[in-house]
Amino acid sequence: MEQCLHFVTLGVADLPRAKRFYVDGLGWTPTLDLEEVCFLQVAPGVLLALWGAEDLAGDVGAGSDDHEHGTGRVAFAHNVGSPEEVDDAVERVEAAGGTVLKAGQTTFFGYHAYVADPDGFRWEIAHNPGWTIDDDGTVHIGSAV
Amino acid sequence: MEQCLHFVTLGVADLPRAKRFYVDGLGWTPTLDLEEVCFLQVAPGVLLALWGAEDLAGDVGAGSDDHEHGTGRVAFAHNVGSPEEVDDAVERVEAAGGTVLKAGQTTFFGYHAYVADPDGFRWEIAHNPGWTIDDDGTVHIGSAV
Repeated sequence: MEQCLHFVTLGVADLPRAKRFYVDGLGWTPTLDLEEVCFLQVAPGVLLALWGAEDLAGDVGAGSDDHEHGTGRVAFAHNVGSPEEVDDAVERVEAAGGTVLKAGQTTFFGYHAYVADPDGFRWEIAHNPGWTIDDDGTVHIGSAV
Repeated sequence: MEQCLHFVTLGVADLPRAKRFYVDGLGWTPTLDLEEVCFLQVAPGVLLALWGAEDLAGDVGAGSDDHEHGTGRVAFAHNVGSPEEVDDAVERVEAAGGTVLKAGQTTFFGYHAYVADPDGFRWEIAHNPGWTIDDDGTVHIGSAV
């Protein structure tokens, strides 16, 4: 599993409020701004995603509401080149002592799984054909995310 | 405030366990591996920091143990070029609807502040003279962090 972070997703209570803060308030520019999610590039190859907390919890499924450890409102993502590579990465994470929260499966944008590190911090492992990075680190993400 | 993420800090319950997962298990290479903290580069210009949850909570101070919102075990960082720029960014965040958790102050590596977005997600705004990014995105961080 390559040493890469591609998304940091914040599960927010009120998406319009979060957008007023990051977009209107801080003046940050979205890469893609949809009704239900807003992506903002924050480093070469890295997007910050603002997404409703309930939507994020629903996407992760089991283990998503981890109030005990305080890890339930954020998720990181690592993208790979194919569904097979998703499954391979999930195996690698499990062998490393991680926990599978959601096994590899087809989703609306491609194929993904959710795993957790030993503290419960969640990583999505995904194959998203609508997502690309240019050589200079600029991220493109399709509207079919 | 530039649209940049420089650090993602995970507050972990057991640092040796977290290192076994990320370093030994996933095979990721630390940029700097100290007794109390481990930094791993995960994107051009971006470090993932593994740090004891209590140390992170102590560094943030008030508002650090946000179990209600589940945001208390992760922090993001945005680095700037001087202590004055830290204070300017804090003002900008507050004007945007954020909350100041820890006002700008001298710390062991330089100067920093902690703010929170409307959901309580915490951002450290920092001036760290021991931290640099090469043109290719490689991060260097001094051992006096």
